[in-house]
Amino acid sequence: MTRKSGILYGLGVGPGDPELITLKAARILNSADVVYAAASTKNSYSLAVSIARPHIPDLTPVKMLHFPMTSDQNKKISAWKKNAHILIEELERSKIVAFITLGDAMTYSTYGYVLQYIQELAPNVSVISVPGITSYQAASACLNKPLVESEESLMILSGVNGGDCLRKFAVAPDNLVFMKSYRNVKDIVNCLEEFDLVDGSVAIQNCGLPEQEIVEDVRGLKNSPPNYWTLILAKRKKGDVPQEK
Amino acid sequence: MTRKSGILYGLGVGPGDPELITLKAARILNSADVVYAAASTKNSYSLAVSIARPHIPDLTPVKMLHFPMTSDQNKKISAWKKNAHILIEELERSKIVAFITLGDAMTYSTYGYVLQYIQELAPNVSVISVPGITSYQAASACLNKPLVESEESLMILSGVNGGDCLRKFAVAPDNLVFMKSYRNVKDIVNCLEEFDLVDGSVAIQNCGLPEQEIVEDVRGLKNSPPNYWTLILAKRKKGDVPQEK
Repeated sequence: MTRKSGILYGLGVGPGDPELITLKAARILNSADVVYAAASTKNSYSLAVSIARPHIPDLTPVKMLHFPMTSDQNKKISAWKKNAHILIEELERSKIVAFITLGDAMTYSTYGYVLQYIQELAPNVSVISVPGITSYQAASACLNKPLVESEESLMILSGVNGGDCLRKFAVAPDNLVFMKSYRNVKDIVNCLEEFDLVDGSVAIQNCGLPEQEIVEDVRGLKNSPPNYWTLILAKRKKGDVPQEK
Repeated sequence: MTRKSGILYGLGVGPGDPELITLKAARILNSADVVYAAASTKNSYSLAVSIARPHIPDLTPVKMLHFPMTSDQNKKISAWKKNAHILIEELERSKIVAFITLGDAMTYSTYGYVLQYIQELAPNVSVISVPGITSYQAASACLNKPLVESEESLMILSGVNGGDCLRKFAVAPDNLVFMKSYRNVKDIVNCLEEFDLVDGSVAIQNCGLPEQEIVEDVRGLKNSPPNYWTLILAKRKKGDVPQEK
């Protein structure tokens, strides 16, 4: 009596370098019936699809799901629901659907939202999420500098609203990542100064892309806000190599 | 006059699922002159090498670097230095060396330590670090539950010394990962209770491996400590899907 359902694969395709996709994501792209990507900004459109493209057979349709760039929560929810319905329709037609997302499928991703609505609206559909390399992992690797070691802590924050998301912790973590350090970068850098973290901070723009740029002194960003694809890595302690006592 | 040097590649091979390795790591393994892995525990030995094995040509030597499982800092430093020297020797012989590590190359990895000594002892060698999928990303994907979304915070902690690494923050982050939740899991669960996080917590043992186990009620771990490969994911708020107002 139950209709045979498809499978939704949520695929993180990594941060930009086309080789930083997993074998698993590449295999699934090769066998999917249809590939969806989020069209939130023109950049994210071309980047996620261009990373995935070599693994998608020529005849497989690649479709865009539109998500408005808005702070209006009702408009966002409408878009998530609408897009969840589009995917559910495909799944009810027994399709193997791949939804690709830049970076990791579960880290600040559009897929994460849509997934929650799909689980609510169609709790019985099969969903398989496949992790991807995040931009902050790529940034740390590109600097050859550990993100976190030993018994240290690592905190990941969104920089969209500035430094207050760090200030509320009072104590700084050992290692810190501010994603999306662009619009409110001045307040983020002020906040890093307040926590005495600014000397251990580095900013990376367009990590892994040809136009990548590393900013060693993040104070300079206060007067020239960088672009959307900028993150800041900060370390609380100086990264001195411990010596034998 | 300068001797042609090799290249050291630090490769994260992902959390266990052999398909969660990147195309980049697979390509480098295929072309390396020699592959090194850390032999800290018998498990990590077989797992990292077994993930990498399909990508290593039969004639490429696979060698182990021994790191003592000890809390004696001097012994650790001696091992890091000794192993850094072994790698530097290969690099001075112009070898392409791949050092593989489970998970991500820059997240709580042995490679991270050795890299720092190599940079100190031989600052001119070429090093390229390649990120890998972490266990906590794989755990979140396997649960189909976002790690972090919107303007939330995500904190990664080592559970080796119990809950104090969280207690010092006073305020809990929105999302939390306790890696290595085994020996001191009782104190970790107590700490999650103190922060009212325990109902939003899930433990995963052997994530992505055939013996994977999900523990929905982490309170049960207090009386039966799990194995080394256990992590706990916690969320501060209930993961209710927001509704249109």
